[in-house]
Amino acid sequence: MLDNINDPSDLKKLSNDQLPQLCQEIRAFFIEKILKNGGHFSANLGVVELTVVLHYIFNFKIDRLVWDVGHQAYIHKLLTGRKKEFERIRKLGGIAGFPKIDESEYDHFGTGHSSTSISAILGMAEAAMLDNKPHKHIAVIGDGSLTGGMAFEALNNLGASNANVLVIINDNQIGIDPNSGAINHHLNTINEKINFFKTLGLAYEGPIDGHDMNSLIHSLEKSRDVKTPQILHIRTIKGKGYLPAEKAQTDWHSVSYVKIDPSKSNTDNPKPSKFQDVFGHTLLELAEKDQRIVGITPAMPSGSSMKILMDAMPNRVFDVGIAEQHAVTFSAGLAAAGKRPFCSIYSSFAQRAYDQIIHDVALQNIPVVFCIDRAGLVGADGPTHHGSFDISYLNAIPNLTIVSPMDEHELRNAMYWAADFTGGPVVIRYPRGLGSKTNYKNEIQPLEVGTSRILQQGDKIGIISIGEIGTEVQKAIKDLNNTIHHIDARFIKPIDENEITNTLRSFDRIITVEESCLIGGFGQQIKNIAQDQNYTGEITSLGLPDQFIEQGTRVELRAKYKLDEKGIRRCIHAIMHKK
Amino acid sequence: MLDNINDPSDLKKLSNDQLPQLCQEIRAFFIEKILKNGGHFSANLGVVELTVVLHYIFNFKIDRLVWDVGHQAYIHKLLTGRKKEFERIRKLGGIAGFPKIDESEYDHFGTGHSSTSISAILGMAEAAMLDNKPHKHIAVIGDGSLTGGMAFEALNNLGASNANVLVIINDNQIGIDPNSGAINHHLNTINEKINFFKTLGLAYEGPIDGHDMNSLIHSLEKSRDVKTPQILHIRTIKGKGYLPAEKAQTDWHSVSYVKIDPSKSNTDNPKPSKFQDVFGHTLLELAEKDQRIVGITPAMPSGSSMKILMDAMPNRVFDVGIAEQHAVTFSAGLAAAGKRPFCSIYSSFAQRAYDQIIHDVALQNIPVVFCIDRAGLVGADGPTHHGSFDISYLNAIPNLTIVSPMDEHELRNAMYWAADFTGGPVVIRYPRGLGSKTNYKNEIQPLEVGTSRILQQGDKIGIISIGEIGTEVQKAIKDLNNTIHHIDARFIKPIDENEITNTLRSFDRIITVEESCLIGGFGQQIKNIAQDQNYTGEITSLGLPDQFIEQGTRVELRAKYKLDEKGIRRCIHAIMHKK
Repeated sequence: MLDNINDPSDLKKLSNDQLPQLCQEIRAFFIEKILKNGGHFSANLGVVELTVVLHYIFNFKIDRLVWDVGHQAYIHKLLTGRKKEFERIRKLGGIAGFPKIDESEYDHFGTGHSSTSISAILGMAEAAMLDNKPHKHIAVIGDGSLTGGMAFEALNNLGASNANVLVIINDNQIGIDPNSGAINHHLNTINEKINFFKTLGLAYEGPIDGHDMNSLIHSLEKSRDVKTPQILHIRTIKGKGYLPAEKAQTDWHSVSYVKIDPSKSNTDNPKPSKFQDVFGHTLLELAEKDQRIVGITPAMPSGSSMKILMDAMPNRVFDVGIAEQHAVTFSAGLAAAGKRPFCSIYSSFAQRAYDQIIHDVALQNIPVVFCIDRAGLVGADGPTHHGSFDISYLNAIPNLTIVSPMDEHELRNAMYWAADFTGGPVVIRYPRGLGSKTNYKNEIQPLEVGTSRILQQGDKIGIISIGEIGTEVQKAIKDLNNTIHHIDARFIKPIDENEITNTLRSFDRIITVEESCLIGGFGQQIKNIAQDQNYTGEITSLGLPDQFIEQGTRVELRAKYKLDEKGIRRCIHAIMHKK
Repeated sequence: MLDNINDPSDLKKLSNDQLPQLCQEIRAFFIEKILKNGGHFSANLGVVELTVVLHYIFNFKIDRLVWDVGHQAYIHKLLTGRKKEFERIRKLGGIAGFPKIDESEYDHFGTGHSSTSISAILGMAEAAMLDNKPHKHIAVIGDGSLTGGMAFEALNNLGASNANVLVIINDNQIGIDPNSGAINHHLNTINEKINFFKTLGLAYEGPIDGHDMNSLIHSLEKSRDVKTPQILHIRTIKGKGYLPAEKAQTDWHSVSYVKIDPSKSNTDNPKPSKFQDVFGHTLLELAEKDQRIVGITPAMPSGSSMKILMDAMPNRVFDVGIAEQHAVTFSAGLAAAGKRPFCSIYSSFAQRAYDQIIHDVALQNIPVVFCIDRAGLVGADGPTHHGSFDISYLNAIPNLTIVSPMDEHELRNAMYWAADFTGGPVVIRYPRGLGSKTNYKNEIQPLEVGTSRILQQGDKIGIISIGEIGTEVQKAIKDLNNTIHHIDARFIKPIDENEITNTLRSFDRIITVEESCLIGGFGQQIKNIAQDQNYTGEITSLGLPDQFIEQGTRVELRAKYKLDEKGIRRCIHAIMHKK
């Protein structure tokens, strides 16, 4: 049956009672493709029936549909002409793992970050009202995403409007990790009388079983005729139809196609740890020694490895929900009361808390330690998730000290140092994925603020790198017979002006390397110092260009943007041969 | 009686029935001081009784108190030993108009932006729980601030915690302009059964009359013994006790000491308009011609002058509440549906929507026009409100076009251009306050993207300025006999590389001028271009240093940071006499 569905219009030719079989075929297809190719898994299995019925009842050439945190939109992609593209989903050049406005006329709004869907759909619906257009506007949002304040801002606005909006609450009680906020608890016992949505003036229907085809058809047909704001609350099971995923929902949130490559699993060599795990284990070590230390995560205990501390000392970790703004100011409150909070946020999600970092932490010079995870390229999640901008947006903030450790040992040194640092708030930024050391546990070396490290002496070209990309520099220069002088800047702020000045004096050709956008980035700071010192040599800055970076593996993307060993070596050769 | 209150401990010596008279004395003192010296007015008159009773019942040497958007904290300051400082409130070197952590042991958390108080107090309360300390933690938050999503994130977290937190909802149904969201409506009819807070697992008491001393004492004494989260809903009248303010609440939100200076009011000369009004009138002009144009404001219709369009075409303007995140993505939704939204947000509040500007607008290249108001120094509101960072944090975002008009005519040109621009999202940034033209209505000149203007030809020094600060440059150079070449860069992104290259070639001494932080700012972009071109001359960048800028008038602060006519002229002289 699925073979004949190439557009939602094909779906409409089926009778009601054919839909369950279609769902079965969809699940079989989806499970096979994603187990093979990798991608977000369980959330999509939870919305198979919903997606089928939505496309069965509505016409999304005219009606509008926004999927919150779009990783639940794979089935939607599958039904809207992109079945064949599933071989290359989330891969370089392939379809995205999230809805993408320029990928299909059925993707009405791109969503990678959480809690944006109601705002976007309400905007579209108000536009339609102004134009006297009667079509339906639907947002599908998980209960986890409801914890993001932005969703509330939109509900508050929606409840006072007359827009033709249906918000479907996809309640499965789990984000990546289990949800724990008051709104999630409320959804378990919600009824017609004690009802969050009704207090906001919103018509409410539910809860209904989101896997029951007839209930879904009945409810959505009814809501098609409603022209004002409405909530439909459905209950679904994340991972539905694939037992391992139903049982271990966090593990199966997404699957990696690397994970099931058998060639990688039976090596005996000690492997480097993930930066995340080094963060988690080190935080536990610190917390064991220092009662002041607490951990804060906005719904990312597993992804950030905050879970290591959480499992050992549950009362010392706060999972505040998908709520980066609150996470930061809550951390500021903890610090103002004498705690030493380590607040872990992904680089691209920290954009959500920019004002709080400025206004609640930096302005008051409160000692929060921000652990900015996923700094730099993240891989398959693509442009919504790359940590491309944090150096630029954080460097402008007064009172921050920003350090970007090159490897696991440096991360540990930075965390130990930050735990006792008395000079104000600290940012420690590190990338997604594996480090370069076989044993992450080092003897802790004290860090001195604003100091760099000379990793190799050389006499022809100076390279100044920041962060983990420095390991690519090391690989690139190791056979170049000490012609290259390599400095790991380590601190972005305050930058090591002395050593940079030395380097400017010693070399008339300098390369800066960062895995971050060039505008406002690290290399620009070096160029500024150079300009101020009337440096007459040449500075080449490697980094991310002024564009959103596509999806792809980190290896592919580093290669494309000349940030890998080979790219750096080519850059060196080009500069060498210029003179 | 007030004369004897120098610390909250003095207050505790009074009997219950003396408190109303104290409130009367406080109002008299407050009204006199603020009418004379300027400052936030009506919100404070609304919390006189609340503030007195809070300090009467609790001991804020041990208990903790956070005032949301701290402009309601003047009475608190008055009762905590800062009565005498009211002569210099909000002035350079004087006490702040907001709570300030280093100003008093009674200011437990700085608050200038809205909706942060519950997060901060919950952090403090969780810290106290870990330390087994039983003291009370209180946040006072207006119903307007509840529309900010961050407050919801905190309530969601609070409802699932056991922290000793009392949240007092100060419900007066008005922010600066009247509140209009669903939560504000709900507070009018809230009861024990249909109750927003109870759905979030929070104990609720109220509503009580916030001007009734006995009710307040009774409720707060009761809540002193509660050790878990609790909401107390009080109703107050903004401006209470000063009739003109009770009647015209928006006008009396704050009073300016300039406003009542008689020497300024009877001049016959035509005066320049505020940038805000030029924005408002121009938007109305555009909206009259173009059905696509709509306006979006996050609760700032008066402050931004969006009210001009709102009054003329109420259905074309959306006041979404204090909800910058939603405002941006809602605008993106409007634009995705064919509208041309002009979304006006103050520079320092746009920090709240940084992720949405990146993820929902720029990444999708959706044509939202952001009108970033209050860019640069704002004056008496001080460090929480200065628009110091927007050039740095916006410039890093791909796909944005950023223009910073120097005067009202340029603002109009930019708005006309942006209304029809098809190259993606646009940022137009302009400052608070008066422009420099006597008649803002000009004949519209078409703008070309990425082009600067040569304002004066000269032969000794090149000055490149961005934004309104260029008018100070004009004043500074007007008697210097064409020795100075002055360029108004106009576009930050894309920058006019051609003209900048010409300038670099023509002058070995260049000055850049911006009213924005230097790190990642405009001057740094010029220096980068210079370094890339092996420029051997000297570039001096004027702008804001890497520190939070204090309160003071714009004139005072520009003088202090050498950004006024005199400072610029001195800089020119210093450079002239160097050679």
